[in-house]
Amino acid sequence: MDNKFPGKDIAHDDLISKFPLAASRYVGHKSKFIVSGVEFGGDLVPIFAGPNMVESRELILDIAKNVKLSGAHFLRGGAFKPLTFPYRSDKYFETRESGLEWLSEAKELYGLPVITEVMEEKFIPQVSDVADILQIGSRNMQNYPFLIACARTNKPIMLKRHYGASLRDWLGAAEYILNEGNSNVILCERGVVAPHTHRSTSRFLMDLQVIPAAQEFTHLPIVIDPSHATFWRSWVAPMALAGVAAGADGVMLEVHPNPSEAAVDPLQSVDYLEFGRLSKQLDSIAKVVGRRTI
Amino acid sequence: MDNKFPGKDIAHDDLISKFPLAASRYVGHKSKFIVSGVEFGGDLVPIFAGPNMVESRELILDIAKNVKLSGAHFLRGGAFKPLTFPYRSDKYFETRESGLEWLSEAKELYGLPVITEVMEEKFIPQVSDVADILQIGSRNMQNYPFLIACARTNKPIMLKRHYGASLRDWLGAAEYILNEGNSNVILCERGVVAPHTHRSTSRFLMDLQVIPAAQEFTHLPIVIDPSHATFWRSWVAPMALAGVAAGADGVMLEVHPNPSEAAVDPLQSVDYLEFGRLSKQLDSIAKVVGRRTI
Amino acid sequence: MDNKFPGKDIAHDDLISKFPLAASRYVGHKSKFIVSGVEFGGDLVPIFAGPNMVESRELILDIAKNVKLSGAHFLRGGAFKPLTFPYRSDKYFETRESGLEWLSEAKELYGLPVITEVMEEKFIPQVSDVADILQIGSRNMQNYPFLIACARTNKPIMLKRHYGASLRDWLGAAEYILNEGNSNVILCERGVVAPHTHRSTSRFLMDLQVIPAAQEFTHLPIVIDPSHATFWRSWVAPMALAGVAAGADGVMLEVHPNPSEAAVDPLQSVDYLEFGRLSKQLDSIAKVVGRRTI
Amino acid sequence: MDNKFPGKDIAHDDLISKFPLAASRYVGHKSKFIVSGVEFGGDLVPIFAGPNMVESRELILDIAKNVKLSGAHFLRGGAFKPLTFPYRSDKYFETRESGLEWLSEAKELYGLPVITEVMEEKFIPQVSDVADILQIGSRNMQNYPFLIACARTNKPIMLKRHYGASLRDWLGAAEYILNEGNSNVILCERGVVAPHTHRSTSRFLMDLQVIPAAQEFTHLPIVIDPSHATFWRSWVAPMALAGVAAGADGVMLEVHPNPSEAAVDPLQSVDYLEFGRLSKQLDSIAKVVGRRTI
Repeated sequence: MDNKFPGKDIAHDDLISKFPLAASRYVGHKSKFIVSGVEFGGDLVPIFAGPNMVESRELILDIAKNVKLSGAHFLRGGAFKPLTFPYRSDKYFETRESGLEWLSEAKELYGLPVITEVMEEKFIPQVSDVADILQIGSRNMQNYPFLIACARTNKPIMLKRHYGASLRDWLGAAEYILNEGNSNVILCERGVVAPHTHRSTSRFLMDLQVIPAAQEFTHLPIVIDPSHATFWRSWVAPMALAGVAAGADGVMLEVHPNPSEAAVDPLQSVDYLEFGRLSKQLDSIAKVVGRRTI
Repeated sequence: MDNKFPGKDIAHDDLISKFPLAASRYVGHKSKFIVSGVEFGGDLVPIFAGPNMVESRELILDIAKNVKLSGAHFLRGGAFKPLTFPYRSDKYFETRESGLEWLSEAKELYGLPVITEVMEEKFIPQVSDVADILQIGSRNMQNYPFLIACARTNKPIMLKRHYGASLRDWLGAAEYILNEGNSNVILCERGVVAPHTHRSTSRFLMDLQVIPAAQEFTHLPIVIDPSHATFWRSWVAPMALAGVAAGADGVMLEVHPNPSEAAVDPLQSVDYLEFGRLSKQLDSIAKVVGRRTI
Repeated sequence: MDNKFPGKDIAHDDLISKFPLAASRYVGHKSKFIVSGVEFGGDLVPIFAGPNMVESRELILDIAKNVKLSGAHFLRGGAFKPLTFPYRSDKYFETRESGLEWLSEAKELYGLPVITEVMEEKFIPQVSDVADILQIGSRNMQNYPFLIACARTNKPIMLKRHYGASLRDWLGAAEYILNEGNSNVILCERGVVAPHTHRSTSRFLMDLQVIPAAQEFTHLPIVIDPSHATFWRSWVAPMALAGVAAGADGVMLEVHPNPSEAAVDPLQSVDYLEFGRLSKQLDSIAKVVGRRTI
Repeated sequence: MDNKFPGKDIAHDDLISKFPLAASRYVGHKSKFIVSGVEFGGDLVPIFAGPNMVESRELILDIAKNVKLSGAHFLRGGAFKPLTFPYRSDKYFETRESGLEWLSEAKELYGLPVITEVMEEKFIPQVSDVADILQIGSRNMQNYPFLIACARTNKPIMLKRHYGASLRDWLGAAEYILNEGNSNVILCERGVVAPHTHRSTSRFLMDLQVIPAAQEFTHLPIVIDPSHATFWRSWVAPMALAGVAAGADGVMLEVHPNPSEAAVDPLQSVDYLEFGRLSKQLDSIAKVVGRRTI
C-alpha cells in the first residue's frame, strides 16, 4: 500500500515500486544524453557559470564572454528569481522578459547554451524559447503539477534538490518528470539543512555524500552548486573541487565581475580570475577520476 | 541589501525588514479572527478532524458525524493529494471534484466548516467554493506565485511548514499572503527533518519548540498536526496533548473509523473512540493553560 | 555480528540483542523504584529544581528553601561543571568540595534529596556521599568506563542524552549501567542538535517525540530538562508543560532568585515566582494524563 | 560572561575569548609539526591505514606490510575499542595489551609509526609507549579531564569530532589540549548526524564543508575518516578523494585483507588492491591542490 513505509532513506523496494524509471538497473548504469552539443553522463563534466541574476544586458554579455573563455559549457543566470521574502530592494529586481532576451543575445553571440530557472507554469513557453535546460529551483522540487508541465516541454530539465529533501524524495520528484516520457533529467545538489553549518550566514551544508549515493541508486547525472550550498566565497572552490573528485557530473558556479557589487548573494560569487583558475583545477581533478571538464 | 545575511534563525532586523506584517508588534501580540463562527487566536483551541483522504461519500459523512459529536470544529480531508511518487495504487486515488462535493454535503449536513488542501492554481476557485479554510501543503510552502494566488481569494489560509524550512523561511512565506491584504493566516507545524526520529518509518520530528518561538516572533495563530509529524498512531495523542500544553492555537488530527484500512497513511490515524477520549483530554489540558477546546 | 547494521533508529532486533535489559518486555512495561522516598515510574512526576551552579552557601540554602515550598522533590545544582571552553570567568568558577558540602547542608536543613553531576571517576566517592542521584552529563553519555564506574556505586543514576545521540545510542549507554546490576536508571532528554532552533542563542531543539518513543521501547523513566534544551527563559514553561503532557516521568528546572545575575546561563533560569506558578500548572497537566506532581 | 551567547556556529568573538590558541591568527595561518618523521600541515597529506581492530598478530603484520607498500604513512588499528552496546560477540573482542604489542612489532618491522585510540586515563601510559599519535575517539571528545590527561603526555593527539558537535564545540575541546602546552593537535572529521544519510545503515554524513571552515578559523591540521563517516565501502573512495580535493591535511582509511570477514564494520573496509589504487589517486588529487601524499 502506498505510503505504508515512508522511509527516510532508500530501501531496496523503492527502486522497484517508487522510482523504477529513475533507478539504476545495473551496477554502473548511467544515462547519457547530449544537450546543445554538450554531453551529460559521459566523461565530460560540464561547467555552468554565470551570475545569480541577469542584472543587465552589459553584465550578462560580459560574463558570457569571460566564462566562455575560461571553459564554461553553459551560461547560467536568473531572469526570474524566487525570494524568501516578498520585498525586493531597488537593486534586487527581476529582469524577467528583458533578462531572457539578454540571455538569448549572449547565447547567440558567444555560442554558449543557456540554463535558467522557470518559476511558474505560465512562463514555461517563454523560458523554453531561450533555455537549453530548464532549471527547477529547490523550492519547486515538490510542486508536482509544475514538474509535469515542465516535463511536457521535452526540454532537458535540471531539478534542484530541496534543502530539506531526502534522496528518496528527490528521486520521487525526478520520477514525475521521467514518467512523462522526458528522460533528460539532471539532478542538482545545492546544500541541505544540517545542525551545524559553521557560519551563521551559511544556511546549508553541501552534501557531497549524496554523489556516490545517487550514483548507486540512479542513472541520472548529478550536478553540484557549491555557490548556493556554501554561501561563502572562500568555500566555493574547495567544495567544487571536492564535488568533482567525488564523482559529480557537472558543476554550477556563480561568477560575477565584481562580486561585492552583485545585486544578490554578494558573499558567494567568484570573479573572472578565480573562475579561470578554478576551471583549470577542476579539469585536473576530473582527469584523476577519469573525467574531463575541457 | 537583500540576502546579504541569509540567517538560519530569526534576527531582530528580520522583524522589521523581512516580515513586518507577520511580526509581533508588542509582547503578547496575537491576531484574532473568526472563520465560519470559530474564533482563532482567542481562548478557543479549535480542533480539525477527519481522514487523510476523502475516500468516499459514505466515509466522509460518517466521519463528519462522529468527529462533530466528539467536539471537532472543522472537518478535514483531502480530495486533492500530493504524493512523493507519481504512482498511485488502486486504493490510493484522489477523489477530486467528487471529494469536494462530498465534503460540501458533510458540511451542510453536520454544520462543520471544512478545511481542505488546494494544490494547483487552476483548482483554487473550485476548492474555494467548498473550503472555509484553504490548506497549503508543506510542499507548496515556497511556491510563492501560488501563495499569492491563494491569498487573493481572501479566504482564510492555513500554511503548513515545509519539513526543511526554518521559522524564518516560514514567516517569509506567510508574509507573501499577508502582503496581498489577506490577514487570516494560520501557521501549521507538521514535523521537520532531524537526525533522529526514533523509528525508521517516522520521517519527521515534531518541533514543539517552534510554538513558543512563533509566539515570540509573530502574532499569527499556530496549529499542530501530530498525525503527519509522528506518522505513528501511539505517538499522536501524547504529542497532541503536548502541543496544546505548549500553547498551540489549534490541533489537526487524522481520524478514520478503521485506521488499518485507511487508503493512505494507515499507521497514523486514530479511530472514533480514541478521538473522543483525546478530545476530552485536549480540553482539560487547554484549561490548564487558560484555553479551551470545547 | 556486532555493528553490521548500525542503525540510526531502533530496529526490532535491537531490543533483543543490543539492549535487552533496557528494552520493554511487554506493552506498557515501566520500571518503578523509590529514591530517598520519592517514587519514579509511578503516578508521581518528580520535580528537580535548583540553580545551574552551586554558587555559594547562601544561594543554595535560599533556593532549597524556596523550591521545597513550591513543591520540588529534589534539589539540583552543580558543584562540578563541564565547560565547552577551558576558560572560566571570575564569576564562573566551580565550587567543588565546598559546593558539595553546601548541597549536603541544604539537604539536611530542608529534607530535599539532592541530584548533582559527577564528572570524573576520581570524584565518584565524594559526590556519592552527598548525591541521592548521580547525574551523568550529556558529554559523558558515551564515556563507557565512567558509566560502569558510576553504576558500581549502586546509586540511582540519571543519564542525560548527548545532544547528537539517537535513542538507540542512549539506550545502549543505559544498558552499560543496567548490565552492572544497577537498575535504578533514569533517562533525561535535554535537547538535540537540529537544523533550526529559531534563535541563534538556542543551540538545541527539545525532542519531546522521544518521550512516547522511549516509552514504547524501554521501561526506564524519562525526565526532561527544558532549561538546557531551550536556553531561553520564556520557552521553558511551555516546554515543561508540554513534556508532562507528553508523558514525561519527571521535570528538571533551573531556578535562581535573580536569573539575570546567575553565574551561568543567565538566559534560561526561572525565578521563585515563576517556579511556583509553573509547579502548580505542572500538577494540573499531570492530572489530565493520570499523573501528579504534588 | 561565560555561556551568555552559546552560539551554534562560530562568531568573531569566539576566536578571541573562547579558543585563542586554536584560532588562526592571520589568513592562511597553519600549524606545522613533525611526528616520527612525517610532517603535518605542510604539503604532505599523510595517510593512516589499517584495520578497525587489531584482531591478531598475523593480521596486523600483514596489513602493515601491505599498506606500507602502497604508501601509508601511519598504521592505524584499535587495541581498545568503544562499543555502543556492552555486549561483544566472540569475534568482536578487544585485544588490549596484546594488540598494543602487535602494533609495536609491526611498527618496528615496517618502520610505520602508529596511531591508536586511548579510551581511559589509566591506559594512557601503556598506549603512549606504542602510539606515535594518541587518538581520542568522538565519544570522548568532550571528556575534558581525559583530554587534559592526554595532553600532558606531550604526545601528538588526534581529536575526533563528536558526530553531534559543532566546529565551535570541537575547537573548544582542542583548546583544552593546547591550553596544557601541547601544540601537536590534529583534528579528525568522521561524519556527523544529519536528517538524511541515504542508506539506513549509514548513520552519518561526511561533513566536507568543515574543511574550508576549519581552515578559515583554526591553524590546526584536519584529517578525514571517510570509512567511519560513510560506513559503506563503495562511498569511501569518492569521499576520500573529495576530502583531499577540499583541502584535508590527512586521510584515515580502514584497510583489511578480507573486508567481509572483518571482526568489526565489515561494510566499510577496503582491501589491499583498492587501497593501492586509491592511494595513487589521492596523490594525484593532492597534486592538483598543491599537496602530495607520496
